[in-house]
Amino acid sequence: MQQTVPETMSTLILNRHDTDLRQAIRGLSRGQRPVPRPRHGQVLVRIEAAPCNPSDLLFLQGLYGVDKTLPAVPGWEGAGTVVAAGGGWLARRLVGKRVACGGQTDTDGTWAEYYLAEARACVPLQRGIDLEQGASLIINPLTALGLFDLARKARVPAVLQTAGASQVGRMLVRLAADAGLPLLSIVRRDEQVELLRSMGAEHLLNSESERFEEQLRRICAELRITMAFEAVAGEMTGRLFNAMPAGARVVVYGALSESPCAAIDPIGLIFRGKRVEGFYLGDWIREQGLLGALRASSKVQKLIRSGAFSTAIQRRVGLEDAVEGLLQYHEHMTDGKVLILPGKKPGTPAG
Amino acid sequence: MQQTVPETMSTLILNRHDTDLRQAIRGLSRGQRPVPRPRHGQVLVRIEAAPCNPSDLLFLQGLYGVDKTLPAVPGWEGAGTVVAAGGGWLARRLVGKRVACGGQTDTDGTWAEYYLAEARACVPLQRGIDLEQGASLIINPLTALGLFDLARKARVPAVLQTAGASQVGRMLVRLAADAGLPLLSIVRRDEQVELLRSMGAEHLLNSESERFEEQLRRICAELRITMAFEAVAGEMTGRLFNAMPAGARVVVYGALSESPCAAIDPIGLIFRGKRVEGFYLGDWIREQGLLGALRASSKVQKLIRSGAFSTAIQRRVGLEDAVEGLLQYHEHMTDGKVLILPGKKPGTPAG
Repeated sequence: MQQTVPETMSTLILNRHDTDLRQAIRGLSRGQRPVPRPRHGQVLVRIEAAPCNPSDLLFLQGLYGVDKTLPAVPGWEGAGTVVAAGGGWLARRLVGKRVACGGQTDTDGTWAEYYLAEARACVPLQRGIDLEQGASLIINPLTALGLFDLARKARVPAVLQTAGASQVGRMLVRLAADAGLPLLSIVRRDEQVELLRSMGAEHLLNSESERFEEQLRRICAELRITMAFEAVAGEMTGRLFNAMPAGARVVVYGALSESPCAAIDPIGLIFRGKRVEGFYLGDWIREQGLLGALRASSKVQKLIRSGAFSTAIQRRVGLEDAVEGLLQYHEHMTDGKVLILPGKKPGTPAG
Repeated sequence: MQQTVPETMSTLILNRHDTDLRQAIRGLSRGQRPVPRPRHGQVLVRIEAAPCNPSDLLFLQGLYGVDKTLPAVPGWEGAGTVVAAGGGWLARRLVGKRVACGGQTDTDGTWAEYYLAEARACVPLQRGIDLEQGASLIINPLTALGLFDLARKARVPAVLQTAGASQVGRMLVRLAADAGLPLLSIVRRDEQVELLRSMGAEHLLNSESERFEEQLRRICAELRITMAFEAVAGEMTGRLFNAMPAGARVVVYGALSESPCAAIDPIGLIFRGKRVEGFYLGDWIREQGLLGALRASSKVQKLIRSGAFSTAIQRRVGLEDAVEGLLQYHEHMTDGKVLILPGKKPGTPAG
C-alpha cells in the first residue's frame, strides 16, 4: 500500500524569530528538504491544505510556548492523504485515507508538501468534509470545544468572550446558542456585531463604543457572567476582570493585542476571589485521553457537516505566494483563514 | 460582672474616602459617639491599643473590599478589656478578660475608646502577651499563617514573597525557617536584606538591584519556586509571574504600590499553566471554622511568647495625635506599626 514518494519536497522555512510580525513573515523562505521517512507508529501525509492560525503567528514571533529548533518548517495543522506508514496497526490502517493532522512539537510542521505525523494524532475525515475544511479541523474547533467544556464543568451561569468575530469566537456563539448558555460576545466593529447577530448571538458589545465599560459591567451583573474566554490580552484582560462579579475567572487563550495583561485591580484578586488563568489546547487534549480526543474530533466533524461550524477562507496561496497571503491574513484576521496549498502553482485557480 | 461604662466615647471618624492617602488621613476627625450596647452574643471591649495596618489604609482610600456606611470609625483590630456582655454563655464568660478583637464589617471599628465585638471573634490573651502585642494578634499573624497554609496544602517545593521586611513578611521568614521550606524574600533596600538575614532568612533579593530580574529567574528555577506571596501589585506582579517556572501561582494579598497588576505575559498563562489569584484573610478564617480559628490564634500566641512572632512598634499615639502618627506610618511602613492608644493624652508617655 506504500505509494511512491519523491526524495525531496518544497517547504516554507523559518530561519529566525522576529517579534515584529511583518518582518517575521517576510523572513520566511522557500526551501527543499528531504521527505521524512515514517517510523513505527508514524505516517507520511501529502498535505493538500494547511491554514495559518494565530498560534502560527505566535510561533513566527518566537512567542509560542513550545520551541522548535530553527531553521524549521512552521504550520501546526493541515489535511491531506496518507501516502506511507512506518509500521504498527493504526499507522498501516491509515494509508490511503484523508486525514486532518497536527500536534507535533519539535519536528517540521505542515507548511510543506509532506508532513510526518504520529498516527494517533491523525483524524480520518468523514465523508462530506473536504480537505479545506479538514485543514482547520483541530486547532480552532477543539479550542472552542475545550473552552466550552471548561464553562460546563465550572457550571457557570453565563460566559463572555473577546474576539467574538474570530473563527473560535463564531464557533463559541454556535455552541452557546445550541446549549442555551448565555454568552456575551465582545467585538471591535459594528459590522461584526451584525455578523454575529445573524449567526444567533444574543448579547453583543463593541469594545470601541463610548460606554463600553459601563455596559460591560451591567451585562456581567445581569447575566451573572463569572467566566471570560479572553483572546486579546493587554488592557482588555483588566477591563474584563474589573467588570466581572465576585468569583470570576478570566481564562486567557490568546494574545491578539501582543501586549502583556494589565490593569488588573488587585482588590478583585484579594477581596472578590477573582483570578486570571490560561487555557492551552495541548493540555486539554492530553487531559481528554485518546478516546476523549476521538469523541471530540468526531463531534467537530458532525458540527462541520451540519453547517454549525464552518471555517471562513479568505484566500488560498501556494508556497510561492505564501508570504503575501500571510501578510494579508495578519492585516485582516477576522476575514477568514489564509490556506496554504503546497500543490498550488502561482496563477492557477485554487483547487 | 458588668462594669460601669460612660454614655459617650471619643473616636476617630472617617467622613469620606480619598484615594489620595495623605488627604484621606488628614480628613480623619475626632468625634463623640454613644457607647454601643452589646446584644446577645456580643461584648463591649475597652480598647487599650489598636494598630494601623495596610488594610486600614485601603479602607481610608475606599479601596478595601468590604464597604462601611460613612461616617464610620476605622480600625480592623485591637486589644482591650471586656467591660460588658450582652448575654450568651461565651459573651458572659469573657467579661473582665483581656482580648484581641476585630473582624466586624459594617459596624464601627477599633479606633475608639470602646468597641462592640462578636464574642466568638474575640481571642482571650494568654499570660505573657501584653495588650500592645495583642492589638496586632489577628490580621498580620493570621495572614502569615494562612498564606503558609496555602503553600503547605499545595505542597510547593519553595515560595517567594514580596514586601519581605513587612510585619507579615518577617513572620513568613520565621514560619518558613522553622518548617524548612525554602523562601525567597524580596525587599527594596539593602538594610532590609541585612535585617532579614539576621532573622534567619536564607534567600534574599533587593528588587532595586540592577540584575534583579535575571537573579529572580535563576533563583526561581534553582529552588523550583511555584508560589509567590505578593503584597506589592503593579508591575511587580508581572515581574514575579514572568520569572517563575511553569505551573506557578502568584497569590496577591496586598497592593502596597497602589497600582493595578500589570506586565503579566499571556504566554505564561496559556502555555505554562501559571495563574494569578488572591488571598483574603476573612475568607481563610471562615474556611477554618471556629475551632480552626481558635487553633490558629492559639498557635499565634505561642509564637509571640516564644519571640518568633513579634510586632515592631514605631510609635504610640492618642486619638488627638493619631493623624500625625498615621502620616508617619504611611511614609515609613516597614519601621513598624503605629499604635493608637485611645486612653493616651498628648504629651504623656506611652503606657
